[in-house]
Amino acid sequence: MIKVGIVGGTGYAGVELLRLLLRHPQASVAVITSRGEAGQRLDALFPNLRGVCDLAFTDPADGGLDDCDVVFFATPHNVALKTVPDLVERGQRVIDLSADYRLRDAAVWEQWYGEPHTSPGLCAEAVYGLPEITRSQIVDARLVALAGCYPTAIQLGFAPLLEAKAVDTSGLIASCASGVSGAGRQAKIANLVTEAGESFKAYGVAGHRHLPEIEQGLSAVAGSSVSVTFVPHLVPMTRGIHATLFAQLEDGAPEDLQDLFERRYADEPFVDVLPAGSLPQTRSVRGANTCQIAVTQPQGRDTVVVTAVIDNLVKGASGQAVQAMNIMLGLPETMGLEVIALIP
Amino acid sequence: MIKVGIVGGTGYAGVELLRLLLRHPQASVAVITSRGEAGQRLDALFPNLRGVCDLAFTDPADGGLDDCDVVFFATPHNVALKTVPDLVERGQRVIDLSADYRLRDAAVWEQWYGEPHTSPGLCAEAVYGLPEITRSQIVDARLVALAGCYPTAIQLGFAPLLEAKAVDTSGLIASCASGVSGAGRQAKIANLVTEAGESFKAYGVAGHRHLPEIEQGLSAVAGSSVSVTFVPHLVPMTRGIHATLFAQLEDGAPEDLQDLFERRYADEPFVDVLPAGSLPQTRSVRGANTCQIAVTQPQGRDTVVVTAVIDNLVKGASGQAVQAMNIMLGLPETMGLEVIALIP
Amino acid sequence: MIKVGIVGGTGYAGVELLRLLLRHPQASVAVITSRGEAGQRLDALFPNLRGVCDLAFTDPADGGLDDCDVVFFATPHNVALKTVPDLVERGQRVIDLSADYRLRDAAVWEQWYGEPHTSPGLCAEAVYGLPEITRSQIVDARLVALAGCYPTAIQLGFAPLLEAKAVDTSGLIASCASGVSGAGRQAKIANLVTEAGESFKAYGVAGHRHLPEIEQGLSAVAGSSVSVTFVPHLVPMTRGIHATLFAQLEDGAPEDLQDLFERRYADEPFVDVLPAGSLPQTRSVRGANTCQIAVTQPQGRDTVVVTAVIDNLVKGASGQAVQAMNIMLGLPETMGLEVIALIP
Amino acid sequence: MIKVGIVGGTGYAGVELLRLLLRHPQASVAVITSRGEAGQRLDALFPNLRGVCDLAFTDPADGGLDDCDVVFFATPHNVALKTVPDLVERGQRVIDLSADYRLRDAAVWEQWYGEPHTSPGLCAEAVYGLPEITRSQIVDARLVALAGCYPTAIQLGFAPLLEAKAVDTSGLIASCASGVSGAGRQAKIANLVTEAGESFKAYGVAGHRHLPEIEQGLSAVAGSSVSVTFVPHLVPMTRGIHATLFAQLEDGAPEDLQDLFERRYADEPFVDVLPAGSLPQTRSVRGANTCQIAVTQPQGRDTVVVTAVIDNLVKGASGQAVQAMNIMLGLPETMGLEVIALIP
Repeated sequence: MIKVGIVGGTGYAGVELLRLLLRHPQASVAVITSRGEAGQRLDALFPNLRGVCDLAFTDPADGGLDDCDVVFFATPHNVALKTVPDLVERGQRVIDLSADYRLRDAAVWEQWYGEPHTSPGLCAEAVYGLPEITRSQIVDARLVALAGCYPTAIQLGFAPLLEAKAVDTSGLIASCASGVSGAGRQAKIANLVTEAGESFKAYGVAGHRHLPEIEQGLSAVAGSSVSVTFVPHLVPMTRGIHATLFAQLEDGAPEDLQDLFERRYADEPFVDVLPAGSLPQTRSVRGANTCQIAVTQPQGRDTVVVTAVIDNLVKGASGQAVQAMNIMLGLPETMGLEVIALIP
Repeated sequence: MIKVGIVGGTGYAGVELLRLLLRHPQASVAVITSRGEAGQRLDALFPNLRGVCDLAFTDPADGGLDDCDVVFFATPHNVALKTVPDLVERGQRVIDLSADYRLRDAAVWEQWYGEPHTSPGLCAEAVYGLPEITRSQIVDARLVALAGCYPTAIQLGFAPLLEAKAVDTSGLIASCASGVSGAGRQAKIANLVTEAGESFKAYGVAGHRHLPEIEQGLSAVAGSSVSVTFVPHLVPMTRGIHATLFAQLEDGAPEDLQDLFERRYADEPFVDVLPAGSLPQTRSVRGANTCQIAVTQPQGRDTVVVTAVIDNLVKGASGQAVQAMNIMLGLPETMGLEVIALIP
Repeated sequence: MIKVGIVGGTGYAGVELLRLLLRHPQASVAVITSRGEAGQRLDALFPNLRGVCDLAFTDPADGGLDDCDVVFFATPHNVALKTVPDLVERGQRVIDLSADYRLRDAAVWEQWYGEPHTSPGLCAEAVYGLPEITRSQIVDARLVALAGCYPTAIQLGFAPLLEAKAVDTSGLIASCASGVSGAGRQAKIANLVTEAGESFKAYGVAGHRHLPEIEQGLSAVAGSSVSVTFVPHLVPMTRGIHATLFAQLEDGAPEDLQDLFERRYADEPFVDVLPAGSLPQTRSVRGANTCQIAVTQPQGRDTVVVTAVIDNLVKGASGQAVQAMNIMLGLPETMGLEVIALIP
Repeated sequence: MIKVGIVGGTGYAGVELLRLLLRHPQASVAVITSRGEAGQRLDALFPNLRGVCDLAFTDPADGGLDDCDVVFFATPHNVALKTVPDLVERGQRVIDLSADYRLRDAAVWEQWYGEPHTSPGLCAEAVYGLPEITRSQIVDARLVALAGCYPTAIQLGFAPLLEAKAVDTSGLIASCASGVSGAGRQAKIANLVTEAGESFKAYGVAGHRHLPEIEQGLSAVAGSSVSVTFVPHLVPMTRGIHATLFAQLEDGAPEDLQDLFERRYADEPFVDVLPAGSLPQTRSVRGANTCQIAVTQPQGRDTVVVTAVIDNLVKGASGQAVQAMNIMLGLPETMGLEVIALIP
């Protein structure tokens, strides 16, 4: 059994990690830390864990992580970068769900997060965790900087087009929407039922922290600089990300875009290209590690529209983290991730 | 492997049965019928099944059920009673999720459902499917008439009090609430987002079809006639039933009601009595086969309040059906039902 | 024009007061205070007020209330009781939407709110603000302690039965449900979309602060001591309260309960007894000052079930406050309150 | 008083027309027709109208429309085109909320709606009803073909840019989202709480019937042919449309886009350009006839992003209809439309 530690388990990514890892045939959760909730039983905070988990949160200072084969960070930004270097040095393998090591250039990170990056050296070494694109590098990674939720949906949606040099890379548009769990489990007035319920809005239009990650990732895929206009929206629901992607087809683009997408993801267990004419909806992947994608060329014009859905807490966070763990440890990639989505 | 057939698979109980049975280590779904959708692939109707289920609906007339060891009926009322007798005679075991055989007295059924009961003889033989109360009879049953969703929550909540003769049986009150999936997957204006969303209402106050089932079941538990005022409500959410139960404590009732409940359900894998002071919420059991229960005695007065939650599609239907199947076939009762609820 | 002041305008009762008063033909909002938001324009906080309200919040210390004919308190408990005595002494008329003066016995208030009551003398003088029951006292009141949201629905529902001595007063049951706005505009994890959405739960079963207010009010109506078991529930929606009320009919109760209710409320502009066989739903009164009520006697048995709905922010707070103001000032009671509810 | 008739009053546009017209100081609703509900009281279908409306639906064959000064059609497509010609000939003024006369070229209508247009002659005469753009033509119109909901938000958002020749007209993108009421009050499985709730999806990507209307309207505004990629999405809420609009700035575009928008709508009572840095949300206009708009230029790049919100049933349908009526009859344009939006 693989001994697993989780740092920062009081958020939604934390409880999702537990839901998956507690049923993973090869993993055993040994320790889960929280400064604020140390001593508290997990199932007091998350009653869905009653009867399946006897753990209590421990203070990170109380140790317990040292024995773990793999340590997941499910922390807000600016936490992992303080602890991860020690773990990596000790030879433990780390999967960081936060944004701390996603940007290869620590200076860009500092610009978007407004704080000094205290372990910039690891930024270059960290492997970006989006298996369908970076799988081969994840195998031996000491530190995986797991892709963010929006970036996962957007990159999976654009990748076939960019790899095929099918679209103009200077004017990509990503109009995305997320359930409220994307904002985390924090007491904010804006995310109350009475504020975010029965309403829809864009946010972060002037600049969202996922933008540099998206452009970095897509540029790597395209092999050249890519520019994206990214507009996220908040949907009055709990889970799910929907990406609606627009690009201008170039001369010489493949005629059969459906075929392009189907071939690109033919061997991917977690990416499902829908039949032509279908469109995905977020609930189809609720609780599952799947990305469902459709490609459309409205009116046969030059603008291609890709729609992609994931569960932001699973393929956009904890499920993808388990997928990365499986890859790192040589386990079957789908192990522990064969959960069927919940409809209705 | 157990060969399973499902009659009437286009509703929510049907897709839930599939979600559970497709991951059940000992079951194999051989056939699933639908008159209206014959020929249609299941995953076209339920995209969460893409990649995990290659079945298509078949017409019931096309056979396929004959080979099945167990046949589930997930049909509206007045369907099972026409087909079940043949299956039972042939020696196949049947689990009926509909209301057709729940009432032992076919005359009462006819009164509430307004149609003749064409196989009244089986009503007396059918075993009522609520394992925590009727487990021993389920073992050898040829036909299990699975408990309804509201009746499951209400009976699990009242049972410890009635068994202990702790309360007045003449004036029980059950004020319950259900998510909209309780109304099934039918095109009704009343259940549109625009009608049932952002609203709360009681319905069926003058008389709901679950009432005779509830009173029959509670009377059996109490060993005497029980009278219930049952008011169901519709909640703007998809899944979940919440029962708020009121009863008047009798002289001589046990002092420690918390202990009464804990002891009653100590060995039940799917009934979870919450610690004193806690109250359940429906989301804690979303997707799981669990019933969470709390008992409270407000202000130390004579009215005891029990609150109980289930997922109406799981413990209130398909999960309970799998639980009954496990019991009938001598499998571990929790097999295939170890799904952790989805929070958030 | 009546000069109106509002103390504590940043909550939902505050913005509702503004929505109504800004369209009231005889009222003019002169000042609205908030410690935390002083200087901030109201329409920055509440964008629905853009173009209809140029006010900014002022610090309570900066005065402005002195000139007001009527001052509304839309504050958390334990605020009004510090300021109201001065205002009343100065001859200003006060309508307090908070709980500070609702209980005639300050000792009971202290027991439930856990803090000393600093102006107990006013508790006895304050008129309880539920016009359909206390209208005649409101006319000359210096201080109206407006009824709470749950208490309004419960008292309107039980009043006809109690006034007619039709039911046993020792075992009333009120199983109620509220939208999340009942919890106010406060940053609490429990009320996030991700926590309160898609879920239903009871809360405060062991003892809710509205209980003494309910029992005090019903006892006054009945002319004798009344005992209530009150269980509130949280509904995943924004607005609305639904009360489901149970009582045991006494010998000698009127046979025609429908007629009893219709006659009781025949002249009330804001109480609407639905035709026999109908049941109310919360959305029918969304945004309106109406209470819709139905009375049912399930199966012709001895338990009568009353269901009543209000918009907790209107008839349960701000609308009722304007209604009280109209009564106090001799205006037509419906002035400014002729808003039609929003369906869908 | 203006005598008003409504054809097809059982949908959501119908009940919204009533909510507004019943409080309109100069209008009196004389007749409201419905084939399916003839004889039924309106308030039985829409309980929010109890006490404010004594009308019953009448069969269209029973007349009553002949006396009306203005007739609104709130019917599905392909109904108005059969009755409107007679009314117009008789000199009655008609406001058609359906799509029957929106496209000037009946052949295009036939292509998108798949049925013959039986009164193509009126298509050319009908005035497109979007007051902020076509006000002067509405004044004397005999027939107003009211703008659709998506088209209203999209045209108000793009108009300032197109009028200023600021953007490339060949590649406009409109990524929009609507509450479920946009689909009308029809019994469709797809719009049940259990299907559309807690989910988000695009629909009609390959071609939505509003596309030709949008392109026709924008082309008229631009004075040249405009091409739009239009992707609508379904939001799990009842009311509201949100348009997120993308365009490429041309050389020579005005530098201060905020100023461009503010000046364009300075005199419009129902279009509210938000301060720079703000973004609109649909709930801010719930129940009101307002369009709130923001313009943003992310990262200072060449892609301009406009976000605009309306209530699809008010500014996107019934409110705009009343606005058009006011213009046609020489009344103050805001009469009866001074409703403040409902927050929360």
